[in-house]
Amino acid sequence: MNDKSVGIVEVKCFNLSDTGESFIELDSGKRFGPISVAYETYGSLNDDKSNAILICHALSGSAHAAGFHKKEGHNPGWWENFVGPGKALDTDKYFIICSNILGGCMGTTGPSSTDPETGNPYGISFPVVTIGDMVKVQKRLIDHLGIKRLLNVIGGSMGGMQALEWILRYPDVPMSCAIIAATSRSSAQSIAFNAVGRKAIISDKRWKDGNYYGGDLPCDGVAIARMIGHITYLSEESMHKKFGRRLQDKEEFSYDFSNEFQVESYLDHQGNKFVERFDANSYLYVTKSMDYFDAGEIYGGGKLETAFENIKARSLILSFTSDWLFPPHQSKEIVDALMKTGKDITYINIKSSYGHDAFLIEMDTQAAIISKFLMATYNKLHGRGNA
Amino acid sequence: MNDKSVGIVEVKCFNLSDTGESFIELDSGKRFGPISVAYETYGSLNDDKSNAILICHALSGSAHAAGFHKKEGHNPGWWENFVGPGKALDTDKYFIICSNILGGCMGTTGPSSTDPETGNPYGISFPVVTIGDMVKVQKRLIDHLGIKRLLNVIGGSMGGMQALEWILRYPDVPMSCAIIAATSRSSAQSIAFNAVGRKAIISDKRWKDGNYYGGDLPCDGVAIARMIGHITYLSEESMHKKFGRRLQDKEEFSYDFSNEFQVESYLDHQGNKFVERFDANSYLYVTKSMDYFDAGEIYGGGKLETAFENIKARSLILSFTSDWLFPPHQSKEIVDALMKTGKDITYINIKSSYGHDAFLIEMDTQAAIISKFLMATYNKLHGRGNA
Repeated sequence: MNDKSVGIVEVKCFNLSDTGESFIELDSGKRFGPISVAYETYGSLNDDKSNAILICHALSGSAHAAGFHKKEGHNPGWWENFVGPGKALDTDKYFIICSNILGGCMGTTGPSSTDPETGNPYGISFPVVTIGDMVKVQKRLIDHLGIKRLLNVIGGSMGGMQALEWILRYPDVPMSCAIIAATSRSSAQSIAFNAVGRKAIISDKRWKDGNYYGGDLPCDGVAIARMIGHITYLSEESMHKKFGRRLQDKEEFSYDFSNEFQVESYLDHQGNKFVERFDANSYLYVTKSMDYFDAGEIYGGGKLETAFENIKARSLILSFTSDWLFPPHQSKEIVDALMKTGKDITYINIKSSYGHDAFLIEMDTQAAIISKFLMATYNKLHGRGNA
Repeated sequence: MNDKSVGIVEVKCFNLSDTGESFIELDSGKRFGPISVAYETYGSLNDDKSNAILICHALSGSAHAAGFHKKEGHNPGWWENFVGPGKALDTDKYFIICSNILGGCMGTTGPSSTDPETGNPYGISFPVVTIGDMVKVQKRLIDHLGIKRLLNVIGGSMGGMQALEWILRYPDVPMSCAIIAATSRSSAQSIAFNAVGRKAIISDKRWKDGNYYGGDLPCDGVAIARMIGHITYLSEESMHKKFGRRLQDKEEFSYDFSNEFQVESYLDHQGNKFVERFDANSYLYVTKSMDYFDAGEIYGGGKLETAFENIKARSLILSFTSDWLFPPHQSKEIVDALMKTGKDITYINIKSSYGHDAFLIEMDTQAAIISKFLMATYNKLHGRGNA
């Protein structure tokens, strides 16, 4: 890995109305618009527009995958180690796009956006959206950029769900995909964790049926939801290594209900920080979209193999041994179905103790795999051997 | 397993002041009393008082381990399948005792009990107690019953922590112990789940610093805590088998934030039911006692082997392959330390898909193991071979 960065970047805005219809048909059957999309790009689109890669972000991510914003105290992008000159997603070679998801709160239209009909934030009058709806909006962005084929669609966690959705919904667009630490369908356990997080938000007295904008935020509910999330992102082993049973700033138990263990302080801090940067209603919508995701059901009437029949993209599937939110056996379900339908598939179960978060931590291993996979795909597209 | 029951049973009450001091010295250094203990017994104590077994219950358990109460609509005891004539804990042979823990809310003194000094419930003026404190109170009960040696102390989950505490704190009292689905110390992950549950309760506007008695109960907080708990009691596999992605009472998504999936309805129901039978403050105290538990630290200055040097009891350790709350490797830490110190130890890692809850479900396998273990212990006590 190197320290090079794409440097200063800007968030751009695309309105669906810029190119065609201002709305999309949601999977729920509703029409919804207008929609604005916040996105960033890194590197340059080549002449034949064959080097574009779309990054799909996870639950709390944003369009800001790499580089630095001028205004925001130089916060690096969330995948800074992965995207840049000479990095796995090499901006010297590829044109990288990352957009905020529909229903999010980082620039793309979501429940905190103003409803033009009322002049107030949508709140929970915002329609429930699916992973498919998010991808439809991304497709409109790609069209707007004049890109007909994507070299790759890549994402971890919920981003991996979107990558899978892409190769199913638009089989002729991505040449390849990289589905990292993801699943073809949310399990009962995963739905359960999301449901508890939502209940915590909805139970917060400051949530006020989603109409908290301009007033007190439902801090406690969001914090609890985020704390639950964080536990599922780490492995038992990584939590043990990181915190063990160490106490925070003291040596003896205080025999009260303050945060005593380091792990308590850490989670409390993460939870309280989160409410400042993430909209509580978006948390409801985004987790719901994950719960609904079931590629086999949506595209194959319940059978993953049937769903996968029309796939044309080469697939790279990565899982992490200690990931228990979207465990390796869920990735293997995808792999088995891809293999049974004779697709071009590469699967690696990466040994890691970092749990689900490994996709944001185990950069060297992933970089080596992904850069080779992308190069092979690029060469295949241009009729060259896998140099 | 048979259908025989110990039949109608009654909850008895023992006041510490009945035999000696009315208080105990807590591990925090405080003196606390008066204390009343709710307990039940099944079977008969034999003449030489050598057939007594103490059951230690888990977080939400009670003294009512077996049989039926006259008044409460014939609810069976929480370990009814396990305790009774001809069962694993055979009431034809053994005298079984089960008491509610200190800090609980099922009859033994806890935060919902009346503070004699104020005439009001203790609330969070109740002192923080440890697993050790619970065991001290159980010891006073055993003394009161005139029992000098226990044939066995048995418990699952937090009950297993108490069983381990017993053989460490009172090495001359239990002849043997059975530590089921437990751990010698709460892990960072386990502490984290408990901490989030407590935060949910404390954040509930109806909790009111613990002074909610006589008014609205902090239903939402308790429900959220219980939902989190339930997820940790099941395995991913058992949740998948039990609920999968099935919807509750409908066939199509409703695209809103109601409980749609069966797993959501189940958890919501479990959570809402729990507040009716369990005191919110007790939940804080009991989970805190689990967080504090660290046998190696308390008795061995951080080393489990040192802690175990004085153990005299024969130990039976049971874990379940799919238990991820107190996973098998945590039981194996106990086993390794017992073996290294040359103790009499039997360990079985029972194959089960039921997760942590297996200790309440996998009755036949456990019954076969435990009844043999108890018989061997009894025969050893009476100088007979292991018939």
